[in-house]
Amino acid sequence: MANLLSASCAVNLPPAIKTYFRPRNKHTTSCSSSFVSHTSPIFTSCRRTLQEPNFVYATATPISKELERIPKSGSSTNSNGPISKPKKVMVIGGDGFCGWATALHLSNKNYEVAVVDSLVRRLFDHQLGVDSLTPISSIQNRIRQWKALTGKTMQLYIGDICDFEFLSEAFKSFEPDVVVHFGEQRSAPYSMIDRSRAVFTQHNNVIGTLNVLFAIKEFSEECHLVKLGTMGEYGTPNIDIEEGYLTITHNGRTDTLPYPKQASSFYHLSKVHDSHNIAFTCKAWGIRATDLNQGVVYGVRTDETALHEELCNRFDYDGVFGTALNRFCVQAAVGHPLTVYGKGGQTRGYLDIRDTVQCVELAIANPAKPGEFRVFNQFTEQFSVNDLAGLVTKAGKKLGLEVQTISVTNPRVEAEEHYYNAKHTKLIELGLKPHLLSDSLLDSLLNVAIQFKDRVDHSQIMPNISWKKIGVKPRTAPVQL
Amino acid sequence: MANLLSASCAVNLPPAIKTYFRPRNKHTTSCSSSFVSHTSPIFTSCRRTLQEPNFVYATATPISKELERIPKSGSSTNSNGPISKPKKVMVIGGDGFCGWATALHLSNKNYEVAVVDSLVRRLFDHQLGVDSLTPISSIQNRIRQWKALTGKTMQLYIGDICDFEFLSEAFKSFEPDVVVHFGEQRSAPYSMIDRSRAVFTQHNNVIGTLNVLFAIKEFSEECHLVKLGTMGEYGTPNIDIEEGYLTITHNGRTDTLPYPKQASSFYHLSKVHDSHNIAFTCKAWGIRATDLNQGVVYGVRTDETALHEELCNRFDYDGVFGTALNRFCVQAAVGHPLTVYGKGGQTRGYLDIRDTVQCVELAIANPAKPGEFRVFNQFTEQFSVNDLAGLVTKAGKKLGLEVQTISVTNPRVEAEEHYYNAKHTKLIELGLKPHLLSDSLLDSLLNVAIQFKDRVDHSQIMPNISWKKIGVKPRTAPVQL
Repeated sequence: MANLLSASCAVNLPPAIKTYFRPRNKHTTSCSSSFVSHTSPIFTSCRRTLQEPNFVYATATPISKELERIPKSGSSTNSNGPISKPKKVMVIGGDGFCGWATALHLSNKNYEVAVVDSLVRRLFDHQLGVDSLTPISSIQNRIRQWKALTGKTMQLYIGDICDFEFLSEAFKSFEPDVVVHFGEQRSAPYSMIDRSRAVFTQHNNVIGTLNVLFAIKEFSEECHLVKLGTMGEYGTPNIDIEEGYLTITHNGRTDTLPYPKQASSFYHLSKVHDSHNIAFTCKAWGIRATDLNQGVVYGVRTDETALHEELCNRFDYDGVFGTALNRFCVQAAVGHPLTVYGKGGQTRGYLDIRDTVQCVELAIANPAKPGEFRVFNQFTEQFSVNDLAGLVTKAGKKLGLEVQTISVTNPRVEAEEHYYNAKHTKLIELGLKPHLLSDSLLDSLLNVAIQFKDRVDHSQIMPNISWKKIGVKPRTAPVQL
Repeated sequence: MANLLSASCAVNLPPAIKTYFRPRNKHTTSCSSSFVSHTSPIFTSCRRTLQEPNFVYATATPISKELERIPKSGSSTNSNGPISKPKKVMVIGGDGFCGWATALHLSNKNYEVAVVDSLVRRLFDHQLGVDSLTPISSIQNRIRQWKALTGKTMQLYIGDICDFEFLSEAFKSFEPDVVVHFGEQRSAPYSMIDRSRAVFTQHNNVIGTLNVLFAIKEFSEECHLVKLGTMGEYGTPNIDIEEGYLTITHNGRTDTLPYPKQASSFYHLSKVHDSHNIAFTCKAWGIRATDLNQGVVYGVRTDETALHEELCNRFDYDGVFGTALNRFCVQAAVGHPLTVYGKGGQTRGYLDIRDTVQCVELAIANPAKPGEFRVFNQFTEQFSVNDLAGLVTKAGKKLGLEVQTISVTNPRVEAEEHYYNAKHTKLIELGLKPHLLSDSLLDSLLNVAIQFKDRVDHSQIMPNISWKKIGVKPRTAPVQL
């Protein structure tokens, strides 16, 4: 682990990184003519229709056949044997935390990748006054750097999938064999800020996914949809959680039905809605789909993001977008008490970002059958919030950090002590080799946090969005109770 | 039954009805100053904000204290004793088939009623080139006539509940104790016409309901939401359907969970989404809600709509908005073979429109507790499509009609032979006295159809919307495969 991380942007970014980013910033404003003239031949860029402000289209040159310049972290095989040929994978939301890591990983594995993204996640940062702990480059520079390092190109389609005209053009141009759909507003607290964010989240996620389903039906019927769901769709029932379906015997009769859903934020609910919509289209239209009900993701580096600072992934630590373990590491690094919500008995499934990319690859390599709505629970271990606080406290001590824990009033409405036992065998059966949470991973995460602790905005650490106090009045940054 | 129907507009409309409607049509264009000047003092009307084209606001004078002029069909009591005082009920979608009948019924029962409606249902008729079998009056004339007959006023708020500013004004102005929410696009075939109608249906229904939930939280926290769901949310599982929840024992543990949902159109799915959203807000905010999972409604008259031709309810017989039994009656009346989809074994729950209004009244009189998400299955009998065809054939014979039945290719994706046993005891326990499907009701429905058979557009009888052929290209009327 330590050796791998020695190449990581996250750990060993040169001190000059800020100045390194600055001169490139002039390239990050959409695709103006000056942008084109400054770039290498890797990129061509144009605004296709001036009437369509959302329809900004940029494309890399056709995929390069140059030799790969980086060692591959694994062969392009799966449990069913080698993949016969590279496939065209559209990664919607490919500029986000999971999406960027996945796009790079699939490109590295010789899939032809197109990133589709509206970049609205970057806008959320501006609007809420938050930022990634790690400095991140623009999507244009990310893709350029990946090409420079590996010779591999990625197509880039910048636009909103809720705009069906844009999505149609992207489908017709790229002709995907697989769509990996991360392109949703993915924060539960964000969806609970105010009415307009709740409505935005459900509209954006549900309508975007409907558009993807229609695009597949219309333009690419054989295309496999790999959709990111969430373990949060199930809630915390008092019985074991199965993978998508439950066989129920009732009054002497038996059927296998969708597992009952009890989501606990407008965001989680949007994923429940997606699941129902997708299941219907699989049945009615013969769509092939895999729903990856993902747990809470931690970590920041993957083999590919570690290659260069411009490939570095985002690392959210704020109360809106940060996930529990990543947030605790940052809190420990800056001497802030770990913020356990309520009793801390909330138990969830967790996984390393390196397993996210592995799981998506496995789903692609082993596609669902036409008409099949397949559900995998995508996590590797269960922890309670108190478990995580204990692990970070212990790891911090090793690094000389004195870590305190406080219980803060739980801003959410959720059970704080409950039964939780969720199955997660299907991805293991397909060949997933989990990166379990280890001392070395915690060390490296804490080291990332320590390295960038000067970038931490302490005012963003405490939760400030209440499930009960959400109202209809729009809230502006700084978001305060 | 026959005596009751002798007062019905549906059976005994005077031949002059068309000329009777014509001179009033000039009043039906929104609320212009000429509209105001022509009306009696019953109405005041204004356009509140010129900047908000969707925000057209019309209000009746404060509720009249005049004596009721019509005999009441039942006393304002329920199984728990008399209702202590009239309550203010906002009926969203109060101009529609179920909504209008409900608004009248509640007004007759001394509830103070406000109708909230965008009137978009009437626009659908124009756009698809379809029309109610029965001539229907404008909502303004309906309310005016109701006042003239009974002295009872209704408030009228014309606008779109997806426009939160409009909804807020309506809430703040009317201050409802109860919201009965029929205000959704309610046709499965409509939602399957094309992509834009699918998206419209889910956006309109899901966001509209979210707005209602936020309005209750913000302006009227004690308000009881009575929401129209559908039995179609459950699909056709191979086990008994319970009312909203199912107690499941799995691997030795037991929990009561939401009944699994398997909806089979974008419309039915929108109701599933609503149910999940409402359940969450009951838990997180303490909203009190009753979800009425209604079966297929038949019939046209209620005690109140029968009082005058201007109060007459709509009767849809077309392939988009018509429900099975009503459509079969019209087909029999005009000599068209009854259109059984596929094998005709599709079994569903059905109820008379008179029981719809009774059920809503019972739900209001026996409200859910704060934080309770209560689900009632609202139907009285189960029939297969073949059962209905048999009943209409028999009833037609009595009236001298020669009724044929044909099997048409099923435009839907659904099981045509399946187990179906849905519970529906909760409303009975609250005091529902069902109007079961009888020979006399079938006679009267057939008589309505015969009376208006010259208004039937034969091109609208056959189904022309396919669950499998839906595409992204917008379809215009006439809708054809």
